Amino acid sequence: MKAEIIAIGTEILLGDIINSNAQYLAQELAALGIDMYYQQVVGDNEIRVMHAFDEAYSRSDIIITTGGLGPTDDDITKEVAAKYFNKELIKDENSTKKIEDYFKFRERAMTQNNLKQGLIPEGATVINNNNGTAPGVIIEDDNKIMIILPGPPKEMKPMFEESVKPYLQEKSDSILVSRVVKILGIGESAVAEEIKDLIDTQTNPTIAPYAKDVGVMLRITAKAETKDEALKLIEPIEEEIKNRLGDNVYATEDINIEEVVARLLIEKKLTISTAESCTGGMIASYLINYPGISEVFLEGAVTYSNEAKHNRLGVNNDILNKYGAVSEETAREMAIGIAKTANTDVSIVTTGIAGPEGGTLEKPVGLVFIGVYVQGKVTIQKCLFKGDRNKVRLQATITGLDMLRRILIK
Amino acid sequence: MKAEIIAIGTEILLGDIINSNAQYLAQELAALGIDMYYQQVVGDNEIRVMHAFDEAYSRSDIIITTGGLGPTDDDITKEVAAKYFNKELIKDENSTKKIEDYFKFRERAMTQNNLKQGLIPEGATVINNNNGTAPGVIIEDDNKIMIILPGPPKEMKPMFEESVKPYLQEKSDSILVSRVVKILGIGESAVAEEIKDLIDTQTNPTIAPYAKDVGVMLRITAKAETKDEALKLIEPIEEEIKNRLGDNVYATEDINIEEVVARLLIEKKLTISTAESCTGGMIASYLINYPGISEVFLEGAVTYSNEAKHNRLGVNNDILNKYGAVSEETAREMAIGIAKTANTDVSIVTTGIAGPEGGTLEKPVGLVFIGVYVQGKVTIQKCLFKGDRNKVRLQATITGLDMLRRILIK
Repeated sequence: MKAEIIAIGTEILLGDIINSNAQYLAQELAALGIDMYYQQVVGDNEIRVMHAFDEAYSRSDIIITTGGLGPTDDDITKEVAAKYFNKELIKDENSTKKIEDYFKFRERAMTQNNLKQGLIPEGATVINNNNGTAPGVIIEDDNKIMIILPGPPKEMKPMFEESVKPYLQEKSDSILVSRVVKILGIGESAVAEEIKDLIDTQTNPTIAPYAKDVGVMLRITAKAETKDEALKLIEPIEEEIKNRLGDNVYATEDINIEEVVARLLIEKKLTISTAESCTGGMIASYLINYPGISEVFLEGAVTYSNEAKHNRLGVNNDILNKYGAVSEETAREMAIGIAKTANTDVSIVTTGIAGPEGGTLEKPVGLVFIGVYVQGKVTIQKCLFKGDRNKVRLQATITGLDMLRRILIK
Repeated sequence: MKAEIIAIGTEILLGDIINSNAQYLAQELAALGIDMYYQQVVGDNEIRVMHAFDEAYSRSDIIITTGGLGPTDDDITKEVAAKYFNKELIKDENSTKKIEDYFKFRERAMTQNNLKQGLIPEGATVINNNNGTAPGVIIEDDNKIMIILPGPPKEMKPMFEESVKPYLQEKSDSILVSRVVKILGIGESAVAEEIKDLIDTQTNPTIAPYAKDVGVMLRITAKAETKDEALKLIEPIEEEIKNRLGDNVYATEDINIEEVVARLLIEKKLTISTAESCTGGMIASYLINYPGISEVFLEGAVTYSNEAKHNRLGVNNDILNKYGAVSEETAREMAIGIAKTANTDVSIVTTGIAGPEGGTLEKPVGLVFIGVYVQGKVTIQKCLFKGDRNKVRLQATITGLDMLRRILIK
């Protein structure tokens, strides 16, 4: 079974957005054991989209399109697909109702254009979109399959995961099962070095490393007839990797560090507070994205100024003057101060120089002191991060959460 | 002049790497005023690469390839290109010497394969590669142009910038200039409706709407011989759009709402504090991503629990009990409370139900009260956001910042 991805959107041809959908779908199709020999990108133009369809079906069985399902007149994917297969566009009651509800709920005016999103080529299967108003469509006709998905990754990915993947899996005779191993604290090349022999000798399962914004992910993928058989192939490899990488492995499922930390805190019934200077609320914001966090997260402070560090956290002015706001000593006082005033078992604090200005020879941009307080004991880590302001803040946030994780699993 | 990008590499078809070269080249070509109607990705396979060349030249004048110039046997781009144009591959003395020097300098053994990189289709122009051993190639033949570039962005981009761009500039007689208009407060389809006549009748400049995570962006693009002429075409359209959309336009350059707000605060010398419940530090974190913010951002509080709302912000327990934490009254007290304790001119506060749990019939998931305090005056907005926890928090964050912007520009 051969598939081809066609991204439809002038914004990709102009370079306004990167075609990240193609990478996601390519990975997913590879994992499903479906071959892909070509990808195309084409603008919002009927003749050219038609041509791309023709070309793709001359060599592939399945076309997956992304983009062009919006409410405006230059969103034409469904219209061109219907024409290609000689089908009428008919109103899908469910999708139309969802669109109407969406606008009613938000008390926003709905235009005639919005209802266009509820039209479906006759005989096609609707793919539910739980994160937007544009449903997807599967057309099966004349031994051809066309899967039409929206462009925004936040809508497209869940739709693929929930509906398209099971659909394609059924068409395939073997299944691929993947498990991920998520790693912090060592870089991609060090990880690859550590498990080079495994990567080189394994064919089933395969092991592929991916560098993330911060951290590394390994994907272990096995091909088998059943899920159980695939898992039996994966498990010994996963164990071996965990043995070699030790505490650097923070998860063996695709969850984020904040979720791991939030779960540990809830499990151990430890309350937490945060006091952030350079990360400026990012640690609190990450933690609070975990739904159950209200059980343990009591309070966060963004103490950007020295006054706030003193007034809110009780950091001694002598320490601020003697060592500076960006120092181990200040971080220590902040960690104790917020835990005490918020009355929590645990705290995470940061103070550093995120840049681009404010660095000196002694205290360069990227220098961050991270403090973690756990029931009376303070741990401080001095870090020197590389990258722009946002990257420094992100690395400080992830490192702070990871420091706490390592203490909590001891 | 029409160009087409063909990325050659099985690693892209497998999703192992993202095709970032295509985005870079697309932006560069658009800026040069060179049209592009299609992009392709194809694996390292002679027949399929040949087919891609055929297809591309049936509709474009210039092909730009990336990838497939490495030393291994599956790097075949130059070989296939030479075959396509019926040319011999001959040794380029300069490139070969560079490769030999490279290995000598690094004291590494050179294999016969490495010398393959010094072979060039006869009659072609060599593009110097100052960051690697694979030179690029320009073939001009039979009214067709093929520009062959290496895959690694670190090599490809400087080669494009230094050699290919000047080459293409000479071939092109016009340039494209773009301006963006960024909008909050009304949706993509409402924006499109409002300026439908402009979008429909304009050919130069063109107007294209894009939905962002939150908000809408319009791109106005003009083609002209000089930048000044292009701007003269853009400006009246931009003015007309601003007139029609009014305060919903928050920027006419590609910056984020937090930057607009930060600049306004700094310009007006107004200090700010935040107190966040459901957004949990996200507003502070957004503001603090603006480098100059330390001038005006004094303090943020993440008051997730009722105790923190009471202790930190002085929200009256009677109000919390009578109206609940998620209420207009609590939001008002929070806004006044944080401005008072942090001693700031301005504050933004949020309290709401981000979900997925915790919603009731009366106070459903997505209900958020946002409060903005500006020098004694409090404005409260009751919002009902859709989407998952993170989306609700993001919309509350952006809406809070936008509320403040609208007050500050009055």
